[in-house]
Amino acid sequence: MTSNEILFLIGASVFAVTGVLAAARQNMDVMSFIVIGVVTAIGGGTLRDLILGLRPFWLPEPAYLYATSAAAVATFFFERRFRAGYNLLLYLDALATAVFTIIATERTLQLGYEPGIAVLMGVITGIGGGVLRDLLTGQPTILMRRELYMTPIIIGGALYVAVRHNVALDPLHVSLFGIAVITLVRLAAIRWRWAFPDWLTYRPAG
Amino acid sequence: MTSNEILFLIGASVFAVTGVLAAARQNMDVMSFIVIGVVTAIGGGTLRDLILGLRPFWLPEPAYLYATSAAAVATFFFERRFRAGYNLLLYLDALATAVFTIIATERTLQLGYEPGIAVLMGVITGIGGGVLRDLLTGQPTILMRRELYMTPIIIGGALYVAVRHNVALDPLHVSLFGIAVITLVRLAAIRWRWAFPDWLTYRPAG
Amino acid sequence: MTSNEILFLIGASVFAVTGVLAAARQNMDVMSFIVIGVVTAIGGGTLRDLILGLRPFWLPEPAYLYATSAAAVATFFFERRFRAGYNLLLYLDALATAVFTIIATERTLQLGYEPGIAVLMGVITGIGGGVLRDLLTGQPTILMRRELYMTPIIIGGALYVAVRHNVALDPLHVSLFGIAVITLVRLAAIRWRWAFPDWLTYRPAG
Repeated sequence: MTSNEILFLIGASVFAVTGVLAAARQNMDVMSFIVIGVVTAIGGGTLRDLILGLRPFWLPEPAYLYATSAAAVATFFFERRFRAGYNLLLYLDALATAVFTIIATERTLQLGYEPGIAVLMGVITGIGGGVLRDLLTGQPTILMRRELYMTPIIIGGALYVAVRHNVALDPLHVSLFGIAVITLVRLAAIRWRWAFPDWLTYRPAG
Repeated sequence: MTSNEILFLIGASVFAVTGVLAAARQNMDVMSFIVIGVVTAIGGGTLRDLILGLRPFWLPEPAYLYATSAAAVATFFFERRFRAGYNLLLYLDALATAVFTIIATERTLQLGYEPGIAVLMGVITGIGGGVLRDLLTGQPTILMRRELYMTPIIIGGALYVAVRHNVALDPLHVSLFGIAVITLVRLAAIRWRWAFPDWLTYRPAG
Repeated sequence: MTSNEILFLIGASVFAVTGVLAAARQNMDVMSFIVIGVVTAIGGGTLRDLILGLRPFWLPEPAYLYATSAAAVATFFFERRFRAGYNLLLYLDALATAVFTIIATERTLQLGYEPGIAVLMGVITGIGGGVLRDLLTGQPTILMRRELYMTPIIIGGALYVAVRHNVALDPLHVSLFGIAVITLVRLAAIRWRWAFPDWLTYRPAG
């Protein structure tokens, strides 16, 4: 296992932990925690792979399954400690989301798809797992919340694609730029509770 | 872009508009409108393509993504005007549903599948987007509503398949026949609030 | 049609009946019953096939579609009689779930995937249809219920894989062993209302 693969496993495990902390409800058993953790962690990438006609990334690498299950079980037993470090976990979650998003965007471009499709695949990778978790646990999806979640991904993905096509830079630097934009915009949105302004928010007449 | 492709884009955009008008809720931001519009418009065809093992139709043609996003944004800003023309939009929605349904049914037959499968693929194409939208926005799906939505599609699809196999007609005429049946039954169901009769409606004993 | 295929159709029809009985709600029409029955019966296997990159098993064999639709319609008209035999139906449901689960686990192993993936594919086969049904009908999914449903499948699937890899037995006998474990643990869980003990059940602090 390369160091990249280990970092990916850690990122996915962070998703499992934050996913479980967000969804934990009265009377759930540890098995539900595992499903929630795994679905949150690998659901988005699975949707993306199915849409692109690829084999889900975790099928040949069950380590994703085991690492995210273990993270969910650990969250079950050490919930209080994990909640104490919730802010750090949110930072790591934002960073890992950004990394997986930019990788998905880049891979989609390499498959020959247009920039808009590549940004969309980044979005599906970044938010799909959380949406599936909300559906399975009966919570309102991010569509119903004012919190900015998709927007940082779209901004960072679009800037990544634009810079990659128009500026002569080392690909690694462009990736780091895209990852930084997504992470920082997301963290700023959490920190200062950013939301769309009123004129971009729907209020029924009457 | 052929005139057919332009008509398809217009049809998909109508789905985005009616989808957003049906799902708009207090405090949704414009980004949620876009997701709802796009999912309603292309969700059914995406499900159908994934089940048939085909590449989702919009992957090589991101114009679907852009047109339906733009339609959702336009609905956000001009909601009142769109609501004023809601009846016209419902007619166009019924017509576009019929067109996409019959095309999906015909393509499935051409892939060599049996009539029942072809009718089902028409149904998934016609209702899938609305079902996904209802799930994402936490609304009861059409399974829970008495409104006739699937039934016109099944009737039209089944008649289309029956005529196509048994009557020597120009394929275009058979298609127009199927499209007309679905559109008219659907519009009649809306106009006269058709629902299944009581003996085909479940009422728990006691 | 072989006798195996007939048994599979009967098993799928049992899923449709128990699925409809579980989901029937005031004011649903017979068409909703059909969708619920079909989705419950073939939804899990469809998810599994899509994830594995296979053609959904019912596409070339529409008999699954017809048999499960007919079972749903029969449940609509003879609901009281079916409810009278509900316990027998639950036994058959547990048995059919076990059979389809072990077949899915074995096929996944034969495709070259690791044991953990094979067990997971069994789980998705066994619970996927019920989860989709709950989402479509707005009911809490099994993630939110204390009832043991996934756990018997995981135990039986894991034991099946372990025995198959480590004990020199006739493959048919190993299959029957796995099927028996899943069926019996599931029936015992129903009979004695087994649930995870308190220390494996989440209760928020405070």
